[in-house]
Amino acid sequence: MTHQDTLDRIDHYLDDHLEEFIAGLARLCAQPSVSTQNVGITECAQLVAEMLREHGYQAELLPSAGFPIVYGEGAGRGDKTLLFYLHYDVQPAEPLELWESPPFTLTRRGDNLYARGVADDKGHIITRLAGLAAVRHALGELPCRVKFIIEGEEEMGSPSMASFIEGHQEMLAADGCVWEFGGVNYDGAPIQVLGMRGICYVELVAKTANQDAHSGLGGSIFPNAAWRLVWALNTLKDQDERILIPGFYDAVQPPTPYDLELLARLPDDAEKTKEMYGLKGFLKGMAGVELRRAAVFEPTCTICGLDSGYQGPGSKTVLPAEARAKVDFRLIPNQSPDDILAKLRAHLDAQGFGDIEIVYHGGTRPARTDPNHPFVQLTNETAAEVYGQEMVVSPLSGGSGPNYPFVHTLRLPVVATGVGYPGGRVHAPNEHIRLHDFIQGIRHTARIVEAFGRM
Amino acid sequence: MTHQDTLDRIDHYLDDHLEEFIAGLARLCAQPSVSTQNVGITECAQLVAEMLREHGYQAELLPSAGFPIVYGEGAGRGDKTLLFYLHYDVQPAEPLELWESPPFTLTRRGDNLYARGVADDKGHIITRLAGLAAVRHALGELPCRVKFIIEGEEEMGSPSMASFIEGHQEMLAADGCVWEFGGVNYDGAPIQVLGMRGICYVELVAKTANQDAHSGLGGSIFPNAAWRLVWALNTLKDQDERILIPGFYDAVQPPTPYDLELLARLPDDAEKTKEMYGLKGFLKGMAGVELRRAAVFEPTCTICGLDSGYQGPGSKTVLPAEARAKVDFRLIPNQSPDDILAKLRAHLDAQGFGDIEIVYHGGTRPARTDPNHPFVQLTNETAAEVYGQEMVVSPLSGGSGPNYPFVHTLRLPVVATGVGYPGGRVHAPNEHIRLHDFIQGIRHTARIVEAFGRM
Repeated sequence: MTHQDTLDRIDHYLDDHLEEFIAGLARLCAQPSVSTQNVGITECAQLVAEMLREHGYQAELLPSAGFPIVYGEGAGRGDKTLLFYLHYDVQPAEPLELWESPPFTLTRRGDNLYARGVADDKGHIITRLAGLAAVRHALGELPCRVKFIIEGEEEMGSPSMASFIEGHQEMLAADGCVWEFGGVNYDGAPIQVLGMRGICYVELVAKTANQDAHSGLGGSIFPNAAWRLVWALNTLKDQDERILIPGFYDAVQPPTPYDLELLARLPDDAEKTKEMYGLKGFLKGMAGVELRRAAVFEPTCTICGLDSGYQGPGSKTVLPAEARAKVDFRLIPNQSPDDILAKLRAHLDAQGFGDIEIVYHGGTRPARTDPNHPFVQLTNETAAEVYGQEMVVSPLSGGSGPNYPFVHTLRLPVVATGVGYPGGRVHAPNEHIRLHDFIQGIRHTARIVEAFGRM
Repeated sequence: MTHQDTLDRIDHYLDDHLEEFIAGLARLCAQPSVSTQNVGITECAQLVAEMLREHGYQAELLPSAGFPIVYGEGAGRGDKTLLFYLHYDVQPAEPLELWESPPFTLTRRGDNLYARGVADDKGHIITRLAGLAAVRHALGELPCRVKFIIEGEEEMGSPSMASFIEGHQEMLAADGCVWEFGGVNYDGAPIQVLGMRGICYVELVAKTANQDAHSGLGGSIFPNAAWRLVWALNTLKDQDERILIPGFYDAVQPPTPYDLELLARLPDDAEKTKEMYGLKGFLKGMAGVELRRAAVFEPTCTICGLDSGYQGPGSKTVLPAEARAKVDFRLIPNQSPDDILAKLRAHLDAQGFGDIEIVYHGGTRPARTDPNHPFVQLTNETAAEVYGQEMVVSPLSGGSGPNYPFVHTLRLPVVATGVGYPGGRVHAPNEHIRLHDFIQGIRHTARIVEAFGRM
């Protein structure tokens, strides 16, 4: 059988079984699994394990520090192993009134499939199962071993993932990993993201009294929690966006010339972004490659929220006893949230803000896959075949995720390909995927598996 | 008739008519008049005018830029005129569930009278009417002309008072003014406040986009409204409490040696205050006269509220498009809110914060009455007679009020005596006065009028 025969058999299988895959997707989307609300989690984990078994894989629910993790594996020819990372939990469906069809009922309107989780991430679970089924049909067996790690806490920041992987390295040993997201950009070109920034999310809390005071009484003699907070925040970053915590940048690895080359090849969507957000411009007037570099290769210190005293209409003459700021540090290789947390504490103490409490709301470490890794090259080639366009490769994403233990503990190259597109309203009402993207995502998954077996 | 006879006749009259005064107070408190909610305002103004007429005064409702002002006047012996400033509006009664009796039903429990507005300020309206009635009874006629200006916007910051007085100077001409509040301290000593700080209340608004962004997307390239606000606020005041707006202190008049002497005589309630608010200490470790001086003779810049982005539990990775701070400047003679507002705008512009919008929520100018004025001396003496204790005289209050046009437009000495005590829960549920304070407040009002006639 020629290679082309194999590919033809894959495509025919997919054509013949599309309605079956859509039915599987409907079944999975019908089971709510909202991790932040602890709704339907175990039921969904059990359903996913059952569906893996129906596809011929061994599957079980393994305990983690949080919600159960579905682990699955299947035999295949050769000595290579491909690991699929996915998640079965979804974002809350609220606000419900903005959905045009019930969020937990897969609904087809036109060429789109709507449901909470259809893109993030249940569509990818089905995509992997469908792609693998096609390859097995075409070759008679899988060309490699496969493993699945499907967690239920991704929408909560994957707090249990690093320790789970630490404790299951042998079980999870593999040669490559396919990530849980991916898809095409607005131009229809396949996109690849080869790393994620880390995050260290804290809340700074100033407390100066046991109750608010009248501003006429205390204004010039009471400590003011809001002022303490403003002054403390001001020591964290200057108006040139330089983060002032000593040692903050110590571990930062600058982008390589090849990273900059990849950034230069990315489409320029700066004007589109400016228009969407109504921005007068970007920080420091940045544009082009410099803007794209800063967007991902600069670590950040973002105030996500401020909360103190009176916030209603008009005026209230109150002196606040408490003030809070949510602050999100995005980290780039090789920064780590533990280290940044310790440096933040030391900095605040040194600046005279020992009274400011730091509440740690979680973090992940940054991690990247080498853009020159053969598995990345393989994926670029299969994508070009399937989509008829060169893959648009981002060396690093601005967002964060649990890829660090995959890259650094399991030492895997990680590629991200999937069924999404920028208009899919992920995390929002009317989340959807386009049917064509679903089919292409399955085809691409099948081709990656087929090529991985020959690698 | 000897002077002592007059005083005896006053006291007997008060003894005989106490239940009548309490009935009048009940009638007034039964009429809700919440200015900030626009509830019952005109009805209450009409009721007050009616009660003035029942006491033999001419009274009418005069239009102002806002709610109607009740103006009343009555004839008397001699060529002197005493003006009473009062207000008929009250704070909202909410939270209703914390009231032990209906807020708009005067309720006597033990030796206390409970109702919204019983202390602030309807008790004072009745106190003035009752004291004047006693004097008229004792002397056959009033020893001076009297005028009443009773507004309905005091709880909103008296926005119409200055312009109303500006336009009615002849009508309001007088030789002395009795203010709307006063009473005794925790030791039972009568208190006198001879001035009020001004206020300039603003909201600073930073807007950087038309919608919040994901912090992973925008953290290092989007302007962040919360950061803009923090940086702008930080330029307003340093950690040594020095306000950094150029020219801010230009008009400030330092306290005189006599002011400091009056401050030195005030009881030291610093420990009580520290305990009540759970403070570790006062700013800069201040204590004693220095603390009392700073509490009133320093202008302030107080952050009353901060509002931006996500403020719920846990973390949300959002980059805020908007951030707001409520800021309250307390002003001391001879600062003015217009001048401070202009200087604030110029300062923000000069510091590169032309993008920060200033929303002005109102202001009043500071004003003081000379502690050596004969009318103040007269009040000190009548207080000592009625209360059996020396009056505790504050040269300036930390709070603010509409006294500027009385002091500077009408050129009146203003004294503040009344029926309150520190435990009266003014502005809070279960607002009350003590019956004994009510009686003493009426006696004192009567003695001031009687002595003013002889001045």
